Amino acid sequence: MPLANTPKPPYYTVIFTSVKSNNDGYDEMSDKMVELVVKQSGFLGFESAKGEVGITVSYWESLEAIRNWYANTEHKEAQNKGRSDWYDSYTVRIAKVEREYSFNKG
Amino acid sequence: MPLANTPKPPYYTVIFTSVKSNNDGYDEMSDKMVELVVKQSGFLGFESAKGEVGITVSYWESLEAIRNWYANTEHKEAQNKGRSDWYDSYTVRIAKVEREYSFNKG
Repeated sequence: MPLANTPKPPYYTVIFTSVKSNNDGYDEMSDKMVELVVKQSGFLGFESAKGEVGITVSYWESLEAIRNWYANTEHKEAQNKGRSDWYDSYTVRIAKVEREYSFNKG
Repeated sequence: MPLANTPKPPYYTVIFTSVKSNNDGYDEMSDKMVELVVKQSGFLGFESAKGEVGITVSYWESLEAIRNWYANTEHKEAQNKGRSDWYDSYTVRIAKVEREYSFNKG
């Protein structure tokens, strides 16, 4: 199930877009973060794709759930390593999802 | 400049995540849509990446600007072709960006 299955809006999203300059050790850390994030209270799902830009969109029940994830000790270590080792640049956007619709070819 | 350079929030975003079953003619249509969207009033930028899932995140001044883009005749034709030819499934989420922060390795 590659597309996230989210509840009826409203809910929150974190849009993380990035350009990496180095990948050493990144994939292991990324796998570890996925293992952790799925256990976070209020986590609803995520989608991720990589090209010239990497995009990860995660979905959350509340702003508090997002704050808790960003305050998670292991996630903070990963964020620090992201800035020192992997990312040339990134943008984090926090947004409130107001509407959602889906298409599925029968 | 691969990352979108957006103004101070609030502004709006459309998160389009998709799984394609067919790519015939898609790239030409995608290029045409990029040409058109950058001319739309209220368009602020976009980011796109493709993997197992494709993700395109576009940024807009207002909900009205988003509505105008979705009502654009050529965009409507592309949407119809998307459902008939290219996409197995997709989700469109409309969200209000409340906070944004960026990192740039000097």
